[in-house]
Amino acid sequence: MGLDTENQAVIQEDLINRLVDELCAPESYERVAHRSYHHVPMPSLEALEELMETLRALLFPGFFGLLDDFRPETLRYHVGAALDQASGMLAEQLTRGFCFDCGDGSRDGCSQCEERAREVTRTFLSRLPHIRYLLSTDVQAAYDGDPAAKSPAETIFSYPSVRFLTNFRVAHELYLLDVPFIPRILTEMAHSQTGIDVHPGAQIGERFFMDHGTGIVVGETAVVGHNVRLYQGVTLGALSFPLDEQGRPLKGIPRHPIVEDDVIIYAGATILGRVTIGRGSIIGGNVWLTQSVPPCSRIAQGRPRDPYFLEGSGI
Amino acid sequence: MGLDTENQAVIQEDLINRLVDELCAPESYERVAHRSYHHVPMPSLEALEELMETLRALLFPGFFGLLDDFRPETLRYHVGAALDQASGMLAEQLTRGFCFDCGDGSRDGCSQCEERAREVTRTFLSRLPHIRYLLSTDVQAAYDGDPAAKSPAETIFSYPSVRFLTNFRVAHELYLLDVPFIPRILTEMAHSQTGIDVHPGAQIGERFFMDHGTGIVVGETAVVGHNVRLYQGVTLGALSFPLDEQGRPLKGIPRHPIVEDDVIIYAGATILGRVTIGRGSIIGGNVWLTQSVPPCSRIAQGRPRDPYFLEGSGI
Amino acid sequence: MGLDTENQAVIQEDLINRLVDELCAPESYERVAHRSYHHVPMPSLEALEELMETLRALLFPGFFGLLDDFRPETLRYHVGAALDQASGMLAEQLTRGFCFDCGDGSRDGCSQCEERAREVTRTFLSRLPHIRYLLSTDVQAAYDGDPAAKSPAETIFSYPSVRFLTNFRVAHELYLLDVPFIPRILTEMAHSQTGIDVHPGAQIGERFFMDHGTGIVVGETAVVGHNVRLYQGVTLGALSFPLDEQGRPLKGIPRHPIVEDDVIIYAGATILGRVTIGRGSIIGGNVWLTQSVPPCSRIAQGRPRDPYFLEGSGI
Amino acid sequence: MGLDTENQAVIQEDLINRLVDELCAPESYERVAHRSYHHVPMPSLEALEELMETLRALLFPGFFGLLDDFRPETLRYHVGAALDQASGMLAEQLTRGFCFDCGDGSRDGCSQCEERAREVTRTFLSRLPHIRYLLSTDVQAAYDGDPAAKSPAETIFSYPSVRFLTNFRVAHELYLLDVPFIPRILTEMAHSQTGIDVHPGAQIGERFFMDHGTGIVVGETAVVGHNVRLYQGVTLGALSFPLDEQGRPLKGIPRHPIVEDDVIIYAGATILGRVTIGRGSIIGGNVWLTQSVPPCSRIAQGRPRDPYFLEGSGI
Amino acid sequence: MGLDTENQAVIQEDLINRLVDELCAPESYERVAHRSYHHVPMPSLEALEELMETLRALLFPGFFGLLDDFRPETLRYHVGAALDQASGMLAEQLTRGFCFDCGDGSRDGCSQCEERAREVTRTFLSRLPHIRYLLSTDVQAAYDGDPAAKSPAETIFSYPSVRFLTNFRVAHELYLLDVPFIPRILTEMAHSQTGIDVHPGAQIGERFFMDHGTGIVVGETAVVGHNVRLYQGVTLGALSFPLDEQGRPLKGIPRHPIVEDDVIIYAGATILGRVTIGRGSIIGGNVWLTQSVPPCSRIAQGRPRDPYFLEGSGI
Amino acid sequence: MGLDTENQAVIQEDLINRLVDELCAPESYERVAHRSYHHVPMPSLEALEELMETLRALLFPGFFGLLDDFRPETLRYHVGAALDQASGMLAEQLTRGFCFDCGDGSRDGCSQCEERAREVTRTFLSRLPHIRYLLSTDVQAAYDGDPAAKSPAETIFSYPSVRFLTNFRVAHELYLLDVPFIPRILTEMAHSQTGIDVHPGAQIGERFFMDHGTGIVVGETAVVGHNVRLYQGVTLGALSFPLDEQGRPLKGIPRHPIVEDDVIIYAGATILGRVTIGRGSIIGGNVWLTQSVPPCSRIAQGRPRDPYFLEGSGI
Repeated sequence: MGLDTENQAVIQEDLINRLVDELCAPESYERVAHRSYHHVPMPSLEALEELMETLRALLFPGFFGLLDDFRPETLRYHVGAALDQASGMLAEQLTRGFCFDCGDGSRDGCSQCEERAREVTRTFLSRLPHIRYLLSTDVQAAYDGDPAAKSPAETIFSYPSVRFLTNFRVAHELYLLDVPFIPRILTEMAHSQTGIDVHPGAQIGERFFMDHGTGIVVGETAVVGHNVRLYQGVTLGALSFPLDEQGRPLKGIPRHPIVEDDVIIYAGATILGRVTIGRGSIIGGNVWLTQSVPPCSRIAQGRPRDPYFLEGSGI
Repeated sequence: MGLDTENQAVIQEDLINRLVDELCAPESYERVAHRSYHHVPMPSLEALEELMETLRALLFPGFFGLLDDFRPETLRYHVGAALDQASGMLAEQLTRGFCFDCGDGSRDGCSQCEERAREVTRTFLSRLPHIRYLLSTDVQAAYDGDPAAKSPAETIFSYPSVRFLTNFRVAHELYLLDVPFIPRILTEMAHSQTGIDVHPGAQIGERFFMDHGTGIVVGETAVVGHNVRLYQGVTLGALSFPLDEQGRPLKGIPRHPIVEDDVIIYAGATILGRVTIGRGSIIGGNVWLTQSVPPCSRIAQGRPRDPYFLEGSGI
Repeated sequence: MGLDTENQAVIQEDLINRLVDELCAPESYERVAHRSYHHVPMPSLEALEELMETLRALLFPGFFGLLDDFRPETLRYHVGAALDQASGMLAEQLTRGFCFDCGDGSRDGCSQCEERAREVTRTFLSRLPHIRYLLSTDVQAAYDGDPAAKSPAETIFSYPSVRFLTNFRVAHELYLLDVPFIPRILTEMAHSQTGIDVHPGAQIGERFFMDHGTGIVVGETAVVGHNVRLYQGVTLGALSFPLDEQGRPLKGIPRHPIVEDDVIIYAGATILGRVTIGRGSIIGGNVWLTQSVPPCSRIAQGRPRDPYFLEGSGI
Repeated sequence: MGLDTENQAVIQEDLINRLVDELCAPESYERVAHRSYHHVPMPSLEALEELMETLRALLFPGFFGLLDDFRPETLRYHVGAALDQASGMLAEQLTRGFCFDCGDGSRDGCSQCEERAREVTRTFLSRLPHIRYLLSTDVQAAYDGDPAAKSPAETIFSYPSVRFLTNFRVAHELYLLDVPFIPRILTEMAHSQTGIDVHPGAQIGERFFMDHGTGIVVGETAVVGHNVRLYQGVTLGALSFPLDEQGRPLKGIPRHPIVEDDVIIYAGATILGRVTIGRGSIIGGNVWLTQSVPPCSRIAQGRPRDPYFLEGSGI
Repeated sequence: MGLDTENQAVIQEDLINRLVDELCAPESYERVAHRSYHHVPMPSLEALEELMETLRALLFPGFFGLLDDFRPETLRYHVGAALDQASGMLAEQLTRGFCFDCGDGSRDGCSQCEERAREVTRTFLSRLPHIRYLLSTDVQAAYDGDPAAKSPAETIFSYPSVRFLTNFRVAHELYLLDVPFIPRILTEMAHSQTGIDVHPGAQIGERFFMDHGTGIVVGETAVVGHNVRLYQGVTLGALSFPLDEQGRPLKGIPRHPIVEDDVIIYAGATILGRVTIGRGSIIGGNVWLTQSVPPCSRIAQGRPRDPYFLEGSGI
Repeated sequence: MGLDTENQAVIQEDLINRLVDELCAPESYERVAHRSYHHVPMPSLEALEELMETLRALLFPGFFGLLDDFRPETLRYHVGAALDQASGMLAEQLTRGFCFDCGDGSRDGCSQCEERAREVTRTFLSRLPHIRYLLSTDVQAAYDGDPAAKSPAETIFSYPSVRFLTNFRVAHELYLLDVPFIPRILTEMAHSQTGIDVHPGAQIGERFFMDHGTGIVVGETAVVGHNVRLYQGVTLGALSFPLDEQGRPLKGIPRHPIVEDDVIIYAGATILGRVTIGRGSIIGGNVWLTQSVPPCSRIAQGRPRDPYFLEGSGI
């Protein structure tokens, strides 16, 4: 009966043994495996999600999680508790981020990375009032910029722009503190939820609003002024990038656009390279732009034509 | 030892106290805080997700959740139970939505909002057979419109178009009943999952299909006829909007396109303003269109040119 | 008091009874209901998510889940255990997929579908080393292609491109084995997370990278060579499709582009129809292309114009 | 560095390999391993918990789970839905129970056990009205018997006696239908929660109440009449049991007490063997009884004495 | 095929319909159903568990949940936040408890019960410092009384006595405030975990310790002095209770023992009736006692005898 | 309106502030708070539960968790993976246990405790084959000893005795390795589930069976031979314990019974002090025994008497 049973097994002994051999051969895994030399685990997406939920609750009292029942007279307690909790969670994940490739090779744990994580955490937390200030301008911009918005509160609770920017503004502060890895994870988490992909290195001014948001891409070295509004599908990208001697892109070169104050860029426009969009300009939808434009420019796509290739088919 | 320990603490006493002071100052939080005067909590995203799961199970018997084992002879029980459950969940969330800024200022709870929530719930539920009918036409349209679809069932189970429209058609009925806030939350939930962003106020006819879907945006006052098909990245947006005396956009003005029956709009096309796309028209991909076109138009983007700026670099 | 209470109930008896009647009428549900004749349940999204988590952990040792603590000396045990677990989960879901419309009509369960599911599972598992090899080239491509990437590991852990391709390369192998339904569910799961929508039938070469990713669409019959890079919003779609006598699109006809090796296609470009993009070509952003281009072509959108319609309004 | 790292690993390669060898040797596992020849999994404690929650909700409308909002006008829907759900869950677990050692050795699944499980499920369900009747008498007995009870409802919601008896009366019906294994699991689940251990084979009359309950034990062949009340720590056990030729206890022989109607047995009393406690008797606390007593007996422990051994120590 | 399928269904149409009829007949459910006239739901066991977890964390800083990382310098924030959270949870559950049978019959919700719940919550919270004081004496008693205990902390973290008493001392304060139903639920929750069943009405002095605990029962009107120690299986119960004219036990009469200070009662002793155990007494194991004993008594069970009934059998 | 709202708040500002002051005063918390000087958290009950589930799955292949589908040909992989997983979990919890009061006072983490935890983990794991052997004898004893058991497998899956002993035998090995705190937590977890409380320090021979189990207590220094069977409510306790000069019980003195091989002790018997129960003895139910008895003794409680105090009342 043993034989019979084995024959019905989904995966037989010889197959599983052969596959284990293949998948455990160093030449199979060496380019896709990660090994922590300090037994420090990978950053945890669940923990970072929880951290962001805590920070979101703390930044917007009365809306989310443990602080969803806002009363001024008890606010101090909840803010203090949330700060303490967030500090521990952040320090733990930063340690993991620093240790991800610190390559020190010493013993269990990595006290250097732990120390650095605590310092960065403290500096970061002291930036929270500033982060809240920036987000408050983003909330106002979302309300002012969308005729469908009924109240600023609505944009805090359900607009992709504010949700993404909460992650982004946290990630950007960490990026400024030379934290590796974690900032990008935070923006990717919000990218997955909103379809917005602003690199944590981008410099973004006050009152930023991304209407609808899906497909927006803003590169690492982009500089965006105050009161800028982007619509879905806008790209502020790199035109091309110089290669090093191995033919790989040189990292860290300014290569994305500078967008000055009070600019509006409509859906699907693509602006590439270290160009400057002068203040007060309006860029039309679907425009492809690789040159600087002076302040108060009005740029639009070429006029659409009548059909010339659409005959004779279903389309 | 106490001192030592404290020095190692992630966040020291003076830092946390200072941050609490800053973050609890009214000038810090007043623009980002929400206060419920009736102790009615914010709408719950978890509860609304569960509501939608219940409605989805109920609308598409045999596919989801508690109704996933469809048999005609027991269907009545499951439909009745799901209706009863959904009615309670919806009434609760509607109460929260109404009370979010009813500003009545009386005592705990808000019996006016509760009463209104119950009435709206009843009216909404009586629209469920109609909602199912509309969705059945959307399912057929998805099957007919996608050569990769093997069966209508496949589109119910896994197509973003049908998933989004389930949320949308529910949200739209609530929008018609003057429910604030909740409809937008429902479409944003589906926006996050699918990348499709159709405002709950948009009027959408039967047999609507959005292939792939990511990046589609349809504005609040858009009117879409029967048998319309959109591809990914299509925008039916506002060209500009009149401002009020404070320079803020006037709300509620018709400002989005009218798309008549049997129109197809290909990927990335952007149509802005209160223009009319005549019935049977086909709009090509990436087109930027701000004018009305007559029935049966064929519109395409300008012919692409040879490269003129692409020399000498990696791109 | 009974009457009173009933009046307050959210949904009264007569309403619920009437709605149950309407919603349980065959003419209401027949186009949106699914009935399994073998009492085989629908595929489970939760189980498929768990399967993908197991495969992801197995393919990238040291990064995820149960294999997140990589050590060569214990790898065999974890790989073997994960393989055994994955085989059971996959066979179960494949059975459901085959049985979804096998329409055999015999008794409980469907031994034919179970047998086929086991065979397909075995064949699929033996392809895992190859899948890992392909993904290792995709990881390298992501690292090489993005100046913002600090290490290949970072792209494994957080880049949408690698995440989508993990689901895709699994789904594609199942597609090649004539598995219905399941492959599309797997890519839709990743579509929801990343905004990338590559049909599981597409043929994708080694070293594939989709930067940012949101809005990318690649159709079922597309053929993509080695070392191809796409940016967000790129469409490799069908121009139109021949209809059958009922006016419905003919299924299975090659209708999507062929993209040869070493091609780069920038953000928002739309390429439609069975055209060929010659090897080494670069297609500019927002281009609309429906014709083949020879190797090493450089294609860009028409030059943007000065504003001619933007006067007098907010835009 | 590899060596170093390995030295720090919690469990080194040679240790894990040696342990795997030892633990996978048949002589190590053969007495503690279970092998399903039909790939039918073990009964699931989680599923049985969920089944009991469903039945509990169904039996006591208005108290638990999906039926916790009782209204007569919608009760039918919830009862029907819960019955349908319970029937599927029970049939699945019964199949596993039957197949646990059916030893048939044929192919995947075991259609014989499935068929039998369906039949037993149907018969069991038709006993539900009777089970509810019995429980309604138990509820009344708990209320009548405990001066601390404020309402019958309180005993349904929080008394160990009613909670245990709900599992027991379900398990007993399954026991009568010759279901192996599952009945005992159901009573053990409730044993763990309440400290009460009544074997599912015991025959228990109406109006049964176990006050406090912890430590009560009632054996498989016990017979308990109507209106019996037990206090904590009461044992209705076997005095001794005849052995078979291998010296193992003979199974299935009547070996536990018969307790007639209207008997009260106080805390800690131990009654052993096939004795009869005549109707209306009262057995005092801590009594050890191995003989039958006539109706209306009053039995108490020997009178306590003064201390004779307690001098000179802490006690 | 329909017929065939139906025949295989676990539960056929006629059976389910018949069972629904039976189970929805008022005569079937009327003695086991609960109906809330105010649409106020039943107390939630999950919420009460969470409440107790919050109070446990708050009472024992550094051990549990959100307060498990104790530092004096941030304690205020966590205590304040936990108090605010606990107050909301308690008020909600008390409302449900009061409304369970307030029978007022007016409209949705019950503002009277809500008001009363808020008042009781406030009074209860102001008793928390006292509750903590009592528990601190219980912790010390557990440490002093058990030679196996290595530290007081160990008893806080894992001893059944302290765990039960945490629930009990909370429940007792609520009992003193005339809260119905909820106190008993709280002690039953701990009864299920520990096997200890002390009624919330019992008056228990400082430094109370129940070693091992399983099977201990203390009745509603018991009075226990300071520094009392009980071992497993001890009962402080009622001997009998006067009946009212319907033959049902009169509620609220003092009927359980008074145990004075510094008494030790060993395992399995049963003390029944309104008797007094004088201070400093020691009651031996398994004693059955229904009379008062003077201070400093030493009471033991009758001396065991040689076997007289054990011949000739396995025992 | 602010005032009004505040008046309705469950807990007002002055109350919460006052309570925070009281509860954060050192004199309030100092006897109930725990402070980790190394920022090493408390042991986690959830993690220890998960550890026990992993060990249980590993010890009894084919019954539980990840190893519930037993096949000899893949067993090695699952055993190896489970061992590796268990080793990490155990080392982490042991570190917490050692550090709970190591009081070293140095920096974050405690490398000494970590090192010791790793060593103990390795030693413990090498005892697993022996633990499995002991449990296999316990399984056999449960099957042999209970006429109601249908198969040894049934006792593995659902008998309290085997469940408790799994935790106990693991805890006992850790106790022998001088692990503080954790062993007691493991037995208390099983105590809560089964009502059995055997101290991890007790020495228990092979083939141990506790029928029903509720209320059994075995003390730290008890010695139990092979093939011993206990029934519910049996106590092997201390009679009294010498006090130190502060009047607190001296810890670590042999103070519990020695029970030799082949002894049976029936329900509710209480055996106290360092007495010896000679091999082959049978102790009757409810016996109170504080003296040694020779081999093959038969001990029973005094003969019950006729009622002398039961007249004239309900009992």
